[in-house]
Amino acid sequence: MINFTPAERQIVLQLERLKRQAGSHSPSIFTLRQKLADVDIKVDACFLSNPYATELFIEYFNREILETGRMRDLMECYPSQNRVIAETLADFLRVDRRRIFIGNGAIEIIQAVIHNFARRKVIINIPTFSSYYEYVKPGVEVVFNLLKKEDHYELDVDEYISMVKSHQPDTIVLINPNNPNGAYTKVSAIQRILEELPFVEQVIVDESFIHFAYEDESYGLMSLSHLASRYPNLVVVKSMSKDFGVAGIRAGYGIMSPDRVETLLANGYLWNSNGLAEYFFRLYAREDFARRYEEVRIKYILENLQFISRLKQVEGIKVYPSMANFVLIELPAGIRSADFVAKLLITYGIYVRVCDDKIGLEGQFIRLASRSSIENDYILQSISACLDFSLVKELENEQVD
Amino acid sequence: MINFTPAERQIVLQLERLKRQAGSHSPSIFTLRQKLADVDIKVDACFLSNPYATELFIEYFNREILETGRMRDLMECYPSQNRVIAETLADFLRVDRRRIFIGNGAIEIIQAVIHNFARRKVIINIPTFSSYYEYVKPGVEVVFNLLKKEDHYELDVDEYISMVKSHQPDTIVLINPNNPNGAYTKVSAIQRILEELPFVEQVIVDESFIHFAYEDESYGLMSLSHLASRYPNLVVVKSMSKDFGVAGIRAGYGIMSPDRVETLLANGYLWNSNGLAEYFFRLYAREDFARRYEEVRIKYILENLQFISRLKQVEGIKVYPSMANFVLIELPAGIRSADFVAKLLITYGIYVRVCDDKIGLEGQFIRLASRSSIENDYILQSISACLDFSLVKELENEQVD
Repeated sequence: MINFTPAERQIVLQLERLKRQAGSHSPSIFTLRQKLADVDIKVDACFLSNPYATELFIEYFNREILETGRMRDLMECYPSQNRVIAETLADFLRVDRRRIFIGNGAIEIIQAVIHNFARRKVIINIPTFSSYYEYVKPGVEVVFNLLKKEDHYELDVDEYISMVKSHQPDTIVLINPNNPNGAYTKVSAIQRILEELPFVEQVIVDESFIHFAYEDESYGLMSLSHLASRYPNLVVVKSMSKDFGVAGIRAGYGIMSPDRVETLLANGYLWNSNGLAEYFFRLYAREDFARRYEEVRIKYILENLQFISRLKQVEGIKVYPSMANFVLIELPAGIRSADFVAKLLITYGIYVRVCDDKIGLEGQFIRLASRSSIENDYILQSISACLDFSLVKELENEQVD
Repeated sequence: MINFTPAERQIVLQLERLKRQAGSHSPSIFTLRQKLADVDIKVDACFLSNPYATELFIEYFNREILETGRMRDLMECYPSQNRVIAETLADFLRVDRRRIFIGNGAIEIIQAVIHNFARRKVIINIPTFSSYYEYVKPGVEVVFNLLKKEDHYELDVDEYISMVKSHQPDTIVLINPNNPNGAYTKVSAIQRILEELPFVEQVIVDESFIHFAYEDESYGLMSLSHLASRYPNLVVVKSMSKDFGVAGIRAGYGIMSPDRVETLLANGYLWNSNGLAEYFFRLYAREDFARRYEEVRIKYILENLQFISRLKQVEGIKVYPSMANFVLIELPAGIRSADFVAKLLITYGIYVRVCDDKIGLEGQFIRLASRSSIENDYILQSISACLDFSLVKELENEQVD
């Protein structure tokens, strides 16, 4: 148990209230700064992004947009239509432009695909990102495939294939690496799923965290995008907010069969990118930018590895295997995750995600993002200190009892 | 007939190709600049915005975002959720926050409302903004109410009411002022429609151009928003791109019954605003900004009035009545609108919208936006010169024939 002073207890309650208001997501850092003015937030370890890639983007943005006075154009003029932006990505992604659907953030693509194509029964592995089941339309059945704690919440591919075969859904969802635990399923294993389950009309694979995963020490970029032409039921969803830390710009894309793109565009999504998102997409597809991004992507992966291995040495917590830029951490018995997160925030200014609301987790969990190496050092020290404090308190309480 | 040199003829063909690619909308100014590098575009009179309001927004943006270094936050952090932004507008709009739905541009609200609520039969006045009928889902009937040329494409309210009564649709759409002609229906007349047609489940009133309309010489802002609590079937759609010239930011809102907002938010639209849009909405609701905006709104209305009255004096064209910031112009017999628009662009650098694709217009029409007074002077001179040239050519051709 963590003890709080009466003033701290007020902050804990306020934090819990804000969390409830944000539904199955976390309150934004803006909201926290506004509503918890007394708390000095130093590190946002709730935000799942590569800070070095953000730096790189800002460098280009400052030089090409701010310093040239192009910012006004980006705000004033209509951005290009969906198809035009899709075309700018085609060569870079090595995907036919007719397979690319541009989204106002990945969340819009999730919504569009689930609303328009998931018509009968959806199988979703849990714990996972909640929008996939929250956006399912009334009348469509949702079947949860509970990932097992004893498997570290990793996907058992053989079991999964037979489960899907027996349920005969029209849509299945795989987030790879998964959120909130970061478990990764190899490309070959997902390809086995695709081979075995051709009757599933939509195999949605969310690769929003794939830039942080790797299968060998060249750290080459993984993705299923190139398989879209082979498997007509494959739908790849990609957020740009995680790789580049540009959540405020709202940029994502989906790779899917041309008929699905046609269906969506015939009925909407015309000007769903803003001027900044269009600039971002055009930059993302440029060779000079891509080369520099690749450097900071690998630098960040290596730092993640180090961060996770040091976290695993911290006594008292269990760190689940992750190939994303975050880890799921199980707290020692007797510590409420909401209290631990509040303590980290109040005493150390570190904002971390409580995982109480994640369906499918049993125990007290937090999700911790990897930030810059300096911030990671600070996070490690603070977590250790916070645990020592909590465990000492725990001991004291036991003695009192 | 307008004659072109062979080089000009190439540009005309390219322009028509770009128009076809843009579907029922206009190619963006970006696309034009990119694909027609030889043409020097001086005035975008296709773009329907108040340039003084854009100046005002940029002034605030520069001071509060650029100069304070907050731009990075706007790009990096998740914006607030839909409900949070709705709440910031409630007091300013004098509308219950539960009635406000925030959109990624008005086009997203049109799509959301038409997709989710128009289930059986939609009546749409034409000519109008095409997305209202393009986004209707398969299986839903669309009935066009053809506005009459002899009525200057203005709505005959009594005829409309009896037409709707005989068709018994679940959804009707009114754009006020209408696009592409700017015809305005008074608030009292729309209220009569609402009173007479309570059986229509959705009365969608698109007020995207309402900031330019007025009913007396105080030029007070018109809107039906405050009537939403009285008429549960009223759905008001509002773009911010026209009043403020911030189409690249993508900001719009809808006012509708709380149960409609709940239905939409239960199923998506969580983070559909970007960081810049959130800043814009918060600014829009601020008293200091609203006061200064009101000044430039009225200044622009007065200049529009002058522009339209001078246009009416130009011989050979017919200018239709408008209460928006644009006019529909019918060209003299023998001049193709596509040629006229090309001539204006190639010789004078003025970009104007062809209206060939608007269902419901018979004749050769263009839609011309009002810009700043200096630009309007230039537009007037250029149109006159272009007409003189065309008419002289016409005369020459007749003599040759």
